[in-house]
Amino acid sequence: MEEIRYRQVLLSSRETQKENSIIDISGKRIGDGGLTIIAGPCSVESENQIFSIAEAVKKAGADFLRGGAYKPRTSPYDFQGLEAEGVRLLLEVRKTLDIPIVSEIVDASNLDLFEDVDILQVGSRNMQNFTLLKALGRTKKPVLLKRGYAATYREVLTSAEYILSEGNSNVIICERGIRTFETYTRNTLDIAAVPAIRELSHLPIAVDPSHGSGRSEFVEDLSLAAVAAGADALMIEVHNHPEDAFSDGKQSITPGEFEILVKKAKAVKEVI
Amino acid sequence: MEEIRYRQVLLSSRETQKENSIIDISGKRIGDGGLTIIAGPCSVESENQIFSIAEAVKKAGADFLRGGAYKPRTSPYDFQGLEAEGVRLLLEVRKTLDIPIVSEIVDASNLDLFEDVDILQVGSRNMQNFTLLKALGRTKKPVLLKRGYAATYREVLTSAEYILSEGNSNVIICERGIRTFETYTRNTLDIAAVPAIRELSHLPIAVDPSHGSGRSEFVEDLSLAAVAAGADALMIEVHNHPEDAFSDGKQSITPGEFEILVKKAKAVKEVI
Amino acid sequence: MEEIRYRQVLLSSRETQKENSIIDISGKRIGDGGLTIIAGPCSVESENQIFSIAEAVKKAGADFLRGGAYKPRTSPYDFQGLEAEGVRLLLEVRKTLDIPIVSEIVDASNLDLFEDVDILQVGSRNMQNFTLLKALGRTKKPVLLKRGYAATYREVLTSAEYILSEGNSNVIICERGIRTFETYTRNTLDIAAVPAIRELSHLPIAVDPSHGSGRSEFVEDLSLAAVAAGADALMIEVHNHPEDAFSDGKQSITPGEFEILVKKAKAVKEVI
Amino acid sequence: MEEIRYRQVLLSSRETQKENSIIDISGKRIGDGGLTIIAGPCSVESENQIFSIAEAVKKAGADFLRGGAYKPRTSPYDFQGLEAEGVRLLLEVRKTLDIPIVSEIVDASNLDLFEDVDILQVGSRNMQNFTLLKALGRTKKPVLLKRGYAATYREVLTSAEYILSEGNSNVIICERGIRTFETYTRNTLDIAAVPAIRELSHLPIAVDPSHGSGRSEFVEDLSLAAVAAGADALMIEVHNHPEDAFSDGKQSITPGEFEILVKKAKAVKEVI
Repeated sequence: MEEIRYRQVLLSSRETQKENSIIDISGKRIGDGGLTIIAGPCSVESENQIFSIAEAVKKAGADFLRGGAYKPRTSPYDFQGLEAEGVRLLLEVRKTLDIPIVSEIVDASNLDLFEDVDILQVGSRNMQNFTLLKALGRTKKPVLLKRGYAATYREVLTSAEYILSEGNSNVIICERGIRTFETYTRNTLDIAAVPAIRELSHLPIAVDPSHGSGRSEFVEDLSLAAVAAGADALMIEVHNHPEDAFSDGKQSITPGEFEILVKKAKAVKEVI
Repeated sequence: MEEIRYRQVLLSSRETQKENSIIDISGKRIGDGGLTIIAGPCSVESENQIFSIAEAVKKAGADFLRGGAYKPRTSPYDFQGLEAEGVRLLLEVRKTLDIPIVSEIVDASNLDLFEDVDILQVGSRNMQNFTLLKALGRTKKPVLLKRGYAATYREVLTSAEYILSEGNSNVIICERGIRTFETYTRNTLDIAAVPAIRELSHLPIAVDPSHGSGRSEFVEDLSLAAVAAGADALMIEVHNHPEDAFSDGKQSITPGEFEILVKKAKAVKEVI
Repeated sequence: MEEIRYRQVLLSSRETQKENSIIDISGKRIGDGGLTIIAGPCSVESENQIFSIAEAVKKAGADFLRGGAYKPRTSPYDFQGLEAEGVRLLLEVRKTLDIPIVSEIVDASNLDLFEDVDILQVGSRNMQNFTLLKALGRTKKPVLLKRGYAATYREVLTSAEYILSEGNSNVIICERGIRTFETYTRNTLDIAAVPAIRELSHLPIAVDPSHGSGRSEFVEDLSLAAVAAGADALMIEVHNHPEDAFSDGKQSITPGEFEILVKKAKAVKEVI
Repeated sequence: MEEIRYRQVLLSSRETQKENSIIDISGKRIGDGGLTIIAGPCSVESENQIFSIAEAVKKAGADFLRGGAYKPRTSPYDFQGLEAEGVRLLLEVRKTLDIPIVSEIVDASNLDLFEDVDILQVGSRNMQNFTLLKALGRTKKPVLLKRGYAATYREVLTSAEYILSEGNSNVIICERGIRTFETYTRNTLDIAAVPAIRELSHLPIAVDPSHGSGRSEFVEDLSLAAVAAGADALMIEVHNHPEDAFSDGKQSITPGEFEILVKKAKAVKEVI
């Protein structure tokens, strides 16, 4: 009978590497002690929409533009994203406005399409889609891996390990809220994930207060909390017309609100 | 701006179809008021192991043999299954012992390999792998869709809808325990899922007390509870040497225990 | 510095006593392998109401009448129970119809008033009201201790220990559902609590499917599941006019439904 | 049939009072936009211990001294507190060092003993001990009401309503972590409780990162997060010898660590 071997210490573990990992993406360094800000709409909806939001968030201080092209939605009857056309629009923005981009990939068969996307996001629902994780591990692309909404700290790190063990160590862990009995917020942002992941791992840790609460009015407070707790990056949903957004409008803030948030977040970063 | 349309009533809903759906698989009818029993090891480990267990569970009254060939495991360093070879062994058993089989599929690219598998299982971790669900929807294969360990009743049914809306209505929902604060059991078997899914949907409902508790000593009690609550099918992990199993040994019962369970389960089915 | 001593093995533990405890209440023996049925309204509302329901449930096979006089309610503006007058009415029913009674006590200062109540219930919200538990421990009254809605098996047993360690071993543990992310049911009935408490402890275990689901239409299925899983007792909310109940009408069944439930529950008990 | 009346708008609600409530305790104003710091040991253990810690936390900037005299413990075999003697020691410290004190009350019968205690704490386990809450409502004492570990925002506010509706509006709500599936931390600190309680209510909101995480190494990060999210007060467990503490040593920080925390917390408060 073939023997099964377990490797006890994870590549992502602090025991394996004492110093924080820094992910360098065209000069933007995530995890080096500064604060990286990722912002943009939940979904890419049109050329006009994505250009307009991208300009606004860039001006306000965003380091990366986020935008969903492939949208994993609970119901098949919800808007599923512009798909390939959405990626094309993002790449156009990237080139025109010179801002690196983050977008979610849902299947390994799309890897070619995402070749010029700067950070590939793996969503909560795919945190244990090991086929996808292994495929990403065989690239060198930076991956932003979102914690599943019912995954423990150790589980998100063993999921990251599927990427690292294939040779790609450019992984950022993202806390985006967990599912609890509380229904006032969409999810419960687990702020202790920031120091906990930092204790367990050398990988950078980002926080998404938009999904983390599902309420635009809490996004600023939770963003500042995340920075105060030591997060390396924030990922914020911004929309020029939240009330008309194709998805997640309720948790999107406006460019104006985002500008104020960035200033405050940087001020908090400075004092800690 | 393109309009987004939502279809309010799901195809899986009781409103769409009043009568229970019956899934007929070579004469085995799941959902017709009887009790279907699926049993076998967590993982296919060797020819000897799978043949030996298959004979035992068939003799004891199992309608279907289960066995994992592709194993989604939390850690990349755990046994990942025999993969294609595992499927091959299952098909050999199927032919030799004339017992239909159930096995988990983790990626649409494996569909060809699973052509003769009778029921394709989608695991909890893939309950929202919509790429996979849509691909299964384009086949006519019976699918056993496991509820995610943090998914609501409505979410597992909207996941099923990804399959139904593509044209495949052969879906069985499987309750296998949810994640709660209780750690004495591996998961908390949500027994109310049985009447709840029945109320919301016309699809058959199965219960997996092995994952539902993670403890072999509770499997019989929980199986009888599932039958008493009205489950159409049970899915039980059985291993000839639980202590040596490559995976999930702690929750596997022996063929002898399984035989007693089947007798009691049928007796309970009869009185209700 | 004074030393703190911990007693490792609980009095309620299987290690302390191998045989199941049997609680004998005027000839009704809870925990002796049979099925004890407790039924009645959530709240005592009037003389007419409690007499009418008591007659009906007794006739249908209930061993004990339940009825709340002191009602711990989430909001101070909800009906708080008839209090002392409610206890008086219960005692009148007890005497007239010769049926033992169960009612909730919320404060030790009411102990005198409950002198002739057969089983004192401690509700979920008071499972860790240690002042109350210790006071009950100094009596010899049978206590039905409900598991808190976020308490582990071990925690409900260490709460029971506050009663046992004061000298009163007449404790029945009651599973009544835990709080999870699922909102379709009021609580998630944790059916594995039955075999788990039995494994950990010699105390009898009751199940309350009414609070456990919050939905009258699921009460029968969950009752049968509880019996099949090995419960010693069921505690069911029955109301002659559920739609007009002062509290918990949505989870109350009618006397007619209760009669059918009792027959089926006894049939399931017989076959297992 | 007697009519049951529900009052729709809570006294604690923002609809009832637009401006934030300020609780003035001998000149210390909780809720006025500043940051109040409560610190001290989990349990009062000895005269020497409590005086030593009190001096240290006062010097480091604590506004209130906390210390448990009556300790509700999961097991009856754990240290239950010095009880009346503990309160006596706290009052001695209060007089000698001129620092107001916070201590937990577990039963209304102890109210006399707590007459000179500045803030009466109601612990998580007693959040729905309505007998106790009503008794506190009939005093004018400031009450720090801890959210139950499985209570929603609305539930902690309806519990507060038991105090307010009896005439006492001096209530501070305290977030101290909720129970989730994550076991790496003792509880999951729900940081969104800060903006959520502020949105729903005019009462001040405190955060306890010690119970909120159960890990001393996370207390500073979570404290800063709480301040950044807008908390009015922090409640921190400090012990001069955490490793020897009678209770909760694992989550207690040292006076030296506390001093640094206070400086950083005030700096964060200033920039937001």
